[in-house]
Amino acid sequence: MYSFDTGVCGGRVINVPRQADFALDLDAIERAAAVSDARVLFLTSPNNPTGNLTPTADIERLLNLPLLVVVDEAYIEFVSNPQASVSSWVGRYENLAVLRTFSKWAGLAGMRIGYGLLPEWLAEQIWKIKQPYNISVAAQAAAVASLADLDYLKANLAQLLAERERLLPQLQAIRFLEPIPSAANFILCRVRGRNAREIKRQLEHQGILVRHYNNSYLRDYIRISIGRPDQSAALLHALRALETDE
Amino acid sequence: MYSFDTGVCGGRVINVPRQADFALDLDAIERAAAVSDARVLFLTSPNNPTGNLTPTADIERLLNLPLLVVVDEAYIEFVSNPQASVSSWVGRYENLAVLRTFSKWAGLAGMRIGYGLLPEWLAEQIWKIKQPYNISVAAQAAAVASLADLDYLKANLAQLLAERERLLPQLQAIRFLEPIPSAANFILCRVRGRNAREIKRQLEHQGILVRHYNNSYLRDYIRISIGRPDQSAALLHALRALETDE
Repeated sequence: MYSFDTGVCGGRVINVPRQADFALDLDAIERAAAVSDARVLFLTSPNNPTGNLTPTADIERLLNLPLLVVVDEAYIEFVSNPQASVSSWVGRYENLAVLRTFSKWAGLAGMRIGYGLLPEWLAEQIWKIKQPYNISVAAQAAAVASLADLDYLKANLAQLLAERERLLPQLQAIRFLEPIPSAANFILCRVRGRNAREIKRQLEHQGILVRHYNNSYLRDYIRISIGRPDQSAALLHALRALETDE
Repeated sequence: MYSFDTGVCGGRVINVPRQADFALDLDAIERAAAVSDARVLFLTSPNNPTGNLTPTADIERLLNLPLLVVVDEAYIEFVSNPQASVSSWVGRYENLAVLRTFSKWAGLAGMRIGYGLLPEWLAEQIWKIKQPYNISVAAQAAAVASLADLDYLKANLAQLLAERERLLPQLQAIRFLEPIPSAANFILCRVRGRNAREIKRQLEHQGILVRHYNNSYLRDYIRISIGRPDQSAALLHALRALETDE
């Protein structure tokens, strides 16, 4: 979910587990920073796959650490509140960098195009170690076309957000699901009294793909991406059928 | 032009200069390999920007060194002789890897798409350190479309090769140029009795872009890319006009 990274070469990575509600464990991060030789703190907001925002107050507190704080805002465009992003803080804090992408909100995942907001000193260093080749001309064209078509993409975003709000209570109504309110384009659901991987498989047999994570933290969860209303309807129909299987 | 590279992390790079005719200095490479902790030898064939092939006998000799030999064959499709490539040796030699690209022969430079031919043990290692993201869907589609349209692209290649052979003697006839026969899609020319950078600038004023390298090895050269016959004609017209300026 996030980690300390001591550097590109031979770096040791320290993962600090999140709290039970998926919030950052600020005390644990500060303790780890004090006893390690970590140099960089990677955060995500909203977090994937839990969907929760990292409060800006948490990020403000962590910026006091003697670390470069990199905030991955890959899903920030799905947050209704424009104050949720810390992108405007870049430059004000010399140790803050923010990463953004066109993969999610603009639907360009396959084009591999994103950007970073960096303080000037860091941009100079990154420039020195950057790989010699640049992003593809197709990716550039797609990004420029996206920016030229913001109204269309923002209308898509608004539809997706509305669908997320409509889907949440309907997932809550499924007996074996405990969905977590999300600020991203997916909803993580805890699966109660049923095997999460089995639920994933049964949905797959009906042509509905949800994500299951094969690790100890998330074994009991499935992650559902927000789609169109007809796709939500098909999903809910399948989930209700599974309910009656119990 | 080529180098020894001791590794990705903290590696020291040893550059062994080529001979006066741009051939590899095999003795110097072997000496450098003996006294250094080098692990990888990077070769190019054909070489950019000199355009000369590396004889396969030279590569065969260097494969006896206790080094991984990586041969960059970015321009190999411009070589008339199909025996010039060592790609069929991969697997036979456990320390040989060959790099290829769609950038040059297929005109996909802006799409960032290429491939490597690696012995199995190396492919397994590369897989471990490969960056998490893959090539873009647009690049994949372009590469697949290129392979589906090989006749068209091979006809382009044949035209380019014919144009290269037609252009060479005409460049030789320019008083201040000494072109080097090339196996690639460009011809490097030594500029005699004139300032190479100045020639580059004067051509640029007429809308003709040639390459000049601002380093001590190549200060006296310009590199001319092979184009269509009408582009060659415009170039030769401009070069002849510069001849009369003398």
